[in-house]
Amino acid sequence: KINGARLWDSLMEMAKIGPGVAGGNNRQTLTDEDAEGRALFQRWCEAAGCTMGLDQMGNMFARREGSDPDALPVYVGSHLDTQPTGGKYDGVLGVLGGLEIIRSLNDLGITTKHPIVVTNFTNEEGTRYAPAMLSSGVFAGIHTQDWAYDRTDAEGKTFGEELVRIGWKGDEEVGARKMHAFFELHIEQGPILEAEGKDIGVVTHGQGLSWTQVTITGKDSHTGSTPMPMRKNAGLGMARVLELVDQIALSHAPHAVGAAGHIDVYPNSRNVIPGKVVFTVDFRSPDLSVIEDMEARLAAGAKTICDDMGLGIEMEKVGGFDPVTFDEGCVSAVRSAAERLGYSHQNIISGAGHDACWINRVAPTAMIMCPCVDGLSHNEAEEISPDWAEAGANVLFHAVVETAEI
Amino acid sequence: KINGARLWDSLMEMAKIGPGVAGGNNRQTLTDEDAEGRALFQRWCEAAGCTMGLDQMGNMFARREGSDPDALPVYVGSHLDTQPTGGKYDGVLGVLGGLEIIRSLNDLGITTKHPIVVTNFTNEEGTRYAPAMLSSGVFAGIHTQDWAYDRTDAEGKTFGEELVRIGWKGDEEVGARKMHAFFELHIEQGPILEAEGKDIGVVTHGQGLSWTQVTITGKDSHTGSTPMPMRKNAGLGMARVLELVDQIALSHAPHAVGAAGHIDVYPNSRNVIPGKVVFTVDFRSPDLSVIEDMEARLAAGAKTICDDMGLGIEMEKVGGFDPVTFDEGCVSAVRSAAERLGYSHQNIISGAGHDACWINRVAPTAMIMCPCVDGLSHNEAEEISPDWAEAGANVLFHAVVETAEI
Ligand SMILES: NC(=O)NCCC(=O)O
Ligand SMILES: NC(=O)NCCC(=O)O
Repeated sequence: KINGARLWDSLMEMAKIGPGVAGGNNRQTLTDEDAEGRALFQRWCEAAGCTMGLDQMGNMFARREGSDPDALPVYVGSHLDTQPTGGKYDGVLGVLGGLEIIRSLNDLGITTKHPIVVTNFTNEEGTRYAPAMLSSGVFAGIHTQDWAYDRTDAEGKTFGEELVRIGWKGDEEVGARKMHAFFELHIEQGPILEAEGKDIGVVTHGQGLSWTQVTITGKDSHTGSTPMPMRKNAGLGMARVLELVDQIALSHAPHAVGAAGHIDVYPNSRNVIPGKVVFTVDFRSPDLSVIEDMEARLAAGAKTICDDMGLGIEMEKVGGFDPVTFDEGCVSAVRSAAERLGYSHQNIISGAGHDACWINRVAPTAMIMCPCVDGLSHNEAEEISPDWAEAGANVLFHAVVETAEI
Repeated sequence: KINGARLWDSLMEMAKIGPGVAGGNNRQTLTDEDAEGRALFQRWCEAAGCTMGLDQMGNMFARREGSDPDALPVYVGSHLDTQPTGGKYDGVLGVLGGLEIIRSLNDLGITTKHPIVVTNFTNEEGTRYAPAMLSSGVFAGIHTQDWAYDRTDAEGKTFGEELVRIGWKGDEEVGARKMHAFFELHIEQGPILEAEGKDIGVVTHGQGLSWTQVTITGKDSHTGSTPMPMRKNAGLGMARVLELVDQIALSHAPHAVGAAGHIDVYPNSRNVIPGKVVFTVDFRSPDLSVIEDMEARLAAGAKTICDDMGLGIEMEKVGGFDPVTFDEGCVSAVRSAAERLGYSHQNIISGAGHDACWINRVAPTAMIMCPCVDGLSHNEAEEISPDWAEAGANVLFHAVVETAEI
């Protein structure tokens, strides 16, 4: 078994970097805080006897040698970046859970046949640079590296510039590594496991996602002296599209969700009718045909709304992935680890996107989930218990060791 | 008559300071650009033989002496600050129109009995610091100076700090000056005069305004893994309130308008359900009872919307003034000036708020409006013709000289 107290201490230590305003974290990708978190992770990995690899997307790979130098490594990991008002566990548990496996193997003096590599993927959250899971996506050949470098944040800084600026751009070709298997431990970020009283979620599938950036253009004009019939109020158009998004998602409930988290209004002045609004619609479902239906209804419905109001509209797909089915062998390894350790468990579909969703395209992959309090995530109040973290890391340990062979 | 070409040149010269991105201006109050605009205005006034007064709100007063040193001055003016994406004429025409009167009196060698003072009031626009017409409001005794100093911009900088920072805080007590009369020339910012083919609007009344800042609180949570029934989506609540605002205003059409120009979403991340949205509802009407009805229906309706969605709501009135009736004598002076000069004219109600609306509380006041293209204002594309500017300034000249007596 792993050392739960040590894992918890490391989680708390990492959470000191990029503290939030309400007990959580703001350690967004490619910020100075991200660099500081990476440096701490590297120090810990080197102290545990690993060598650190770094690719051209800033993905980190801490390697513990195996007894068979020709065997492909088993990879474990997740991401250290957070939301602007994020929690202490989303992503971090999967990275430091991986590190804890290495430390436990060291404690036990076990050498696996396959090397074990703990990864930290760059920009999983997708807040600063859309899309989410950008660098695991490049690793899996979904996006080109040049395209990824050109992603721009709200201040106009590109991913490529910022990666160089924080000093974490490596030389290694992205995606050149071959994996024997990949395992990601993550908090559920939803309410199911806690409600069902289960220690472990055996993740069989992942929901698909679609991000559509909508730009509605009206005409800046005076809120006082512009008669109602002459207004081209992009803000009101946005309001109607948000209502439509809700209706579309609800029409597929409980097999779909939909909302807009990102909304920018221009020029954002109390006495100017908004001339432009940019927002991103997030639709998800485990069923690809449902996602396609939602996208089509959004495209048609939003266009009708804007046409009726004399507004312009542009829609661009800025992120997305199809629903995922994880590897049967890896999923079984997770399930039998939970059985063997005597943890209660159930199959679960991931509601969120994860680096594992992309890595699944290039390697046998599975995920392990542990509960989180009230299903709350992407919130500074995100919480898990030390027992839950320990159980998840123990299952990860057993699944990885079984796959890496002793 | 005034010198229309000189007035136009001055307008174009001032527009070089704080240029916008699309041909207009971004010379927001208490920015470095505001300071630069003020310095240019002061140089011009001093070159025209005026002495400059500066009060503790940064209001500027350029004085041309009269023949009777005991006579109260006739004031003219408006504001030099602009919207973030503002036009070249909103406010500026009234200030530089006032300067043009002084220059023309100099050209003609005329000394009026009453001194003439050209004013530039600080923070008329209200974008950076709500409410609008802040400093004419302090001048008229509507707000206390301390309260005004504590107004905070989106970055947390106070009005008081920024006024000192840009170097335009004077010693003079605010509102100590007594005015014989006040005249403000302004572009209409609406479509009526252009549509009716009139050169001059004789402003008899001003619409009242009500600004309510609405804060809706939900719960930040993951857009993917939070089931629809568990969501507390403050963004969706905002969307429904925006629809309500539109319905309320339309129910009083054409005697009311309503919209929200300012909307901030938190944490504003693509995959986080908005936990908080702050926005400002702008309602206007020439009829006080209509404004009161709209406020009451917003308060009740928005509360019901949020209660039904499990959202929190707070509403705060952050600006407003009652409908205004301008001084009969000053209005007559404007009308007879237009008659005498042979300009077509009509009575008009100001749709926007103006410094004159507050000064009307402490001095006999009237306004002159000139048309603007397509009624467009609070937009960089705001446009007027040199002829319209000249006609407006000529009417201002005659009304002022008649009131200041020769
Ligand atoms: N796990 C997680 O929050 N990933 C971010 C990508 C997503 O929005 O699902
Ligand atoms: N004239 C003008 O645009 N003033 C700003 C205050 C308002 O919103 O009416």
